[in-house]
Amino acid sequence: MATLRGGDLSRLRQLNSLTAIGALRGAGPLTLSALAKRTGLSRPSMKEVVDELMQLGWVEETPPAQGTIGRPARRYRFRASSGYLVGLDIGGHNIRAALANLNGEILAETRQPVRPDTPVEERLAAIERTVASCLALGGKTIADVWIVAAGTIGVITPEGRIHYCAAIPAWTGLDLAGRLREMFPCDVVVENDSRLAARAEAQRGTVRDASDVVFLHVGRRMGAALIIGGNVHRGFGAAAGEIAMLPQAQWFDAPEHLQNCSIIPPDTSPADAAGYTLAAARAGDPVALAAVERYVDDLAVGTSAMVLLLDPQVVVLGGGFSRSADVLLPPLRERLRRSCIRLPDVRASTLGDECVVTGAIDYAVAHLDHQLFTPDVPLPTSR
Amino acid sequence: MATLRGGDLSRLRQLNSLTAIGALRGAGPLTLSALAKRTGLSRPSMKEVVDELMQLGWVEETPPAQGTIGRPARRYRFRASSGYLVGLDIGGHNIRAALANLNGEILAETRQPVRPDTPVEERLAAIERTVASCLALGGKTIADVWIVAAGTIGVITPEGRIHYCAAIPAWTGLDLAGRLREMFPCDVVVENDSRLAARAEAQRGTVRDASDVVFLHVGRRMGAALIIGGNVHRGFGAAAGEIAMLPQAQWFDAPEHLQNCSIIPPDTSPADAAGYTLAAARAGDPVALAAVERYVDDLAVGTSAMVLLLDPQVVVLGGGFSRSADVLLPPLRERLRRSCIRLPDVRASTLGDECVVTGAIDYAVAHLDHQLFTPDVPLPTSR
Repeated sequence: MATLRGGDLSRLRQLNSLTAIGALRGAGPLTLSALAKRTGLSRPSMKEVVDELMQLGWVEETPPAQGTIGRPARRYRFRASSGYLVGLDIGGHNIRAALANLNGEILAETRQPVRPDTPVEERLAAIERTVASCLALGGKTIADVWIVAAGTIGVITPEGRIHYCAAIPAWTGLDLAGRLREMFPCDVVVENDSRLAARAEAQRGTVRDASDVVFLHVGRRMGAALIIGGNVHRGFGAAAGEIAMLPQAQWFDAPEHLQNCSIIPPDTSPADAAGYTLAAARAGDPVALAAVERYVDDLAVGTSAMVLLLDPQVVVLGGGFSRSADVLLPPLRERLRRSCIRLPDVRASTLGDECVVTGAIDYAVAHLDHQLFTPDVPLPTSR
Repeated sequence: MATLRGGDLSRLRQLNSLTAIGALRGAGPLTLSALAKRTGLSRPSMKEVVDELMQLGWVEETPPAQGTIGRPARRYRFRASSGYLVGLDIGGHNIRAALANLNGEILAETRQPVRPDTPVEERLAAIERTVASCLALGGKTIADVWIVAAGTIGVITPEGRIHYCAAIPAWTGLDLAGRLREMFPCDVVVENDSRLAARAEAQRGTVRDASDVVFLHVGRRMGAALIIGGNVHRGFGAAAGEIAMLPQAQWFDAPEHLQNCSIIPPDTSPADAAGYTLAAARAGDPVALAAVERYVDDLAVGTSAMVLLLDPQVVVLGGGFSRSADVLLPPLRERLRRSCIRLPDVRASTLGDECVVTGAIDYAVAHLDHQLFTPDVPLPTSR
């Protein structure tokens, strides 16, 4: 049999640790034998891996099962509560926070409305309040938090600075990661909100079965994200998915067809305007139906560009307008059938408004796992 | 140390075989110790791997180095000439064939012109003639060939059938892989020509350093291919890269600006028309320069869609028009700078007209390597 040496060995050890954590996450307590069976590793190797993970505080021994004859086998579980994760969705109209354990199980959620023109310092203060109330709701303090993962709208540099943000003009140029690090004494990561939503959809939403996905993040703003070969595609400068910036894609102003439909009562809040049009279309109003047709015409151009280019297995309609998928999906499918070579499966998101904050939690979990792979980064240890 | 078992073991063994073949390819004869050093494997593991590869006919022992004191160490080399590969580029206007050894080193190339309206059976006969003359030129027969890899224009199913081909209308619906298998008594694979050209560019061309690439395959026809995370992206139904099919991308008729410029002398062959315009633009002719501007305007729309969506490290201008990259790249860069968030590096192909046939050879090499990873496929053995 071939033997691994040197660099291969430590990579293999890390892979084994991750495999063990993966097997323990979500499962009840497992014996070494059960764990070895699930991971395909030998029992002695499994023992070594588990001992190391226990030293790091990631895994703990549980009391033996009651009433067992003879000496009961030791059982181990992932210490999902040895640390906590905070997910943030910083949008134009809402700040959302979620608190989760290390399994990504969400324990508390809070939301506070803001406006696209809310000044930067006020928006940052709203973020701090939303997180504080989420921690209080979950009975934790910021000292319990290992990672804050924030999603926001706009083009974000790999370092977490806002390169450009059309939706929140004051956001452009802000060192968001830096400001959040001043606010929270833990690891902070920042990512584009559409990419986080796509990640949530792949992890716990409607495309758990697909590895090539175009995610449409549509609401009052238009966004997109790509999953290619099972990975969320970031791009060389972390700027992928910005098809809305191409005038010919007809995306930028597309929501106006729904937001400014003539049937909307004059006192309707902008937050409810598109919903009014979509509801009226569902009820058969011809003016609303015509507005929906124009909206889907535009939506289909950018979507066709992505489908023709990537030939994905699935297109997911996500974001705020996905609540009206029953109205939007049939005409979207019909247009894609005409313009594309192969019509992908077109599905509605099942995560709704929580898609970004949920994806932020999943991103934090992935970031934590990634630390296992990076030898120079000290692993967080249980307090 | 952790021990691998079961499925892991055979995967590891295959990985070791590939690593060994990779180290031997292109290198001179190597001793077991040198090979172990290069691969990071232990000498005993290396011995096992080499023995197996010798049994399969992939590796051979060479005579010991002359004049060595004491018992000379055995040396091994990859048997690049134990089999041969044929690459094919089946275009609208030309059939090209290349013969290579198992290292992908090209030993002979032949070309025969055809027309887009050449009937299917005539085109297939031209393919057979082009391959026969290429084999004769290289001093081989079809019995020496392990794999024929064919690239052709159009949307091709994963099984090698032509789903749709605008450039060669009679091609649509043809079971190309089936017809080539009737013609050649060996393994046959078929792939889209732009994807093969992109592969060649990544393997031996101008983007050996990049893993996220948009490849523009531009000439009398417009095509594109994507390299994402180091892999040529095929798409779920093998139909990726077809941005030219979207009218709003302004690609389909773009070459007409160069093909039908008013300064082209009336007796110019269509094969030379665009080249005439590009040469006149290089010399400063204002009418030709205006035609180039219009062409680049259109080229930039589809290219911007891809750049905004994927944020690649590099855009490569390949295909027939890449010979005029000096005329085309400056205005293309200028437009991308205006329309995109981040201007990628924009480079010209270095492979020219041979890009598809070269990529077909590289695809055949990859297909051969892939067989090592697929336990149920019997490995080709030396005759």
